[in-house]
Amino acid sequence: MKVLAATIASLALIASSAQAEETKAMPTSKSMLTREDVRMVAPALDKYTQDRLLGEVWKRPGLSVRDRSIVTLAALIARNQTIEMPAYFNLALDNGVKPQEISEIVTHLAFYSGWANAMSAVAVAKDVFAERKIGTDQLPPASGALLPLDEAAEAQRAERVGQQFGAVVPGVVQYTTDVLFRDLWLRADLVPRDRSLVTVSALIANGQVAQLTPHPQ
Amino acid sequence: MKVLAATIASLALIASSAQAEETKAMPTSKSMLTREDVRMVAPALDKYTQDRLLGEVWKRPGLSVRDRSIVTLAALIARNQTIEMPAYFNLALDNGVKPQEISEIVTHLAFYSGWANAMSAVAVAKDVFAERKIGTDQLPPASGALLPLDEAAEAQRAERVGQQFGAVVPGVVQYTTDVLFRDLWLRADLVPRDRSLVTVSALIANGQVAQLTPHPQ
Amino acid sequence: MKVLAATIASLALIASSAQAEETKAMPTSKSMLTREDVRMVAPALDKYTQDRLLGEVWKRPGLSVRDRSIVTLAALIARNQTIEMPAYFNLALDNGVKPQEISEIVTHLAFYSGWANAMSAVAVAKDVFAERKIGTDQLPPASGALLPLDEAAEAQRAERVGQQFGAVVPGVVQYTTDVLFRDLWLRADLVPRDRSLVTVSALIANGQVAQLTPHPQ
Repeated sequence: MKVLAATIASLALIASSAQAEETKAMPTSKSMLTREDVRMVAPALDKYTQDRLLGEVWKRPGLSVRDRSIVTLAALIARNQTIEMPAYFNLALDNGVKPQEISEIVTHLAFYSGWANAMSAVAVAKDVFAERKIGTDQLPPASGALLPLDEAAEAQRAERVGQQFGAVVPGVVQYTTDVLFRDLWLRADLVPRDRSLVTVSALIANGQVAQLTPHPQ
Repeated sequence: MKVLAATIASLALIASSAQAEETKAMPTSKSMLTREDVRMVAPALDKYTQDRLLGEVWKRPGLSVRDRSIVTLAALIARNQTIEMPAYFNLALDNGVKPQEISEIVTHLAFYSGWANAMSAVAVAKDVFAERKIGTDQLPPASGALLPLDEAAEAQRAERVGQQFGAVVPGVVQYTTDVLFRDLWLRADLVPRDRSLVTVSALIANGQVAQLTPHPQ
Repeated sequence: MKVLAATIASLALIASSAQAEETKAMPTSKSMLTREDVRMVAPALDKYTQDRLLGEVWKRPGLSVRDRSIVTLAALIARNQTIEMPAYFNLALDNGVKPQEISEIVTHLAFYSGWANAMSAVAVAKDVFAERKIGTDQLPPASGALLPLDEAAEAQRAERVGQQFGAVVPGVVQYTTDVLFRDLWLRADLVPRDRSLVTVSALIANGQVAQLTPHPQ
């Protein structure tokens, strides 16, 4: 598991940037930094970005560009890397991630990466949404119909977590059940498979490997 | 210990934000982000913030709002989450944390979370202090009378740390004794119990569980 | 190893700031924060910075001020501590770190600390370089002649990494060989010893102790 984590981590973090430029695979996206800025400090970094990151990693067949955008956004939010966020929010929208999915990713990570990281993402995303005229009509409701719960699997999870942590921090166990697994994970605008992708990416990005086991993709 | 750490961590991080709004429990505080900003990106996040975080977690009886403010500030500084800091510095002052205590928290965390994180906190706090007309007369002196040292406990700690680390990094051991335990921890304007709260919160916020054992609350 | 890591970590992080002021050891450097700013929030922090950090740690004989600048830059970039970066980029240049070495440090850490952290460093360094009129003629080429490879040592490394990770993430293993050890580490404008210093400092700054073993200084 540790091996898996460490290595996927490398991949996830290698994937954590792209000075978005016009390429066939990735339409124009706005960034605070231009390629010229990068070349004024590190011409080699610009070359690695173009050749290896955008030219190779992003084009590997194992993960779609939409999913790579989700993984990258999760890593950026998990590590509070705000400078690169505008480019990647735009790139995610260009790559087919829907505004309501971005909204849910930010909300989801408030619980897994810390509330303040989600708020930093809000501070960036609101400008991206405004520039692209994405209004609240394209966002998920604060509360809405939830996906059906797998009661048996949830009972097993709750028992396992209760046994591990219940004696020490019953409050956390209760919130994990009530807010996370009977509410957040069932919100309809981001499918469970994508919530797993987001969660695993965020945990790996911060090296939180101990929490990875219950979150297989 | 790992269980304790992981779960307290969840709690600490869940507690790491509050779009400060007028509620009876928490007076007005300034924030760079408004509730409207949050709703323009993630209406659900705003609802969780209001209902679960401000409406429930912050009102749990196990920890006072003053102490929750200290824990939250420590987590924000430890993770360099500057965007949320203005709101939480103000909230801490509203909740009864004194300017000299905030000053000591920032100084304390220079040693535990890295000097640069403390400097980021300074960059935010100086504006909060200026707006609230908190002058240097309300701050602790650079050097002042220290609290009495428990020589026996300190001798034990120094011996334990010396045995563990002395052969590899004697310089760190010496600084740990001279600067941390015979100076910083004895500064009078933040009581030892609160220094423990700050230290444990910062270590948990960064997942530094290996250092938690010697810092029981 | 854990002991070594933890303690060096303390040292590295203690070293992670200096409100650069005129002293004989360290010429003037620009900083967003002034000493006066620090004193308006935490007079004790200013005193510790002057007496202990600049007055003692930076003057310890075990590591030159040039190397301390490299270690500190690596820690700042690894932890995305942008607020202190302008002062430390300037200080590094004042302490004899060459522009092409800074360029290589930023590029190197894209792979070890995440691409987005390198891009944050670019955003700061480009202004520092512009102010000091450091042009692209002083930067390393995007591609150039590489240092000779120790084929035997590299074969051992590749075999060890292949055995550990090859079955799980062959893509990462291939990139580790092709991009890191047969390219990045051989770039001529930062000597291998300094790349080790940068890598170890960055890993320690983020508590990534599992990766330290193969990177002895």
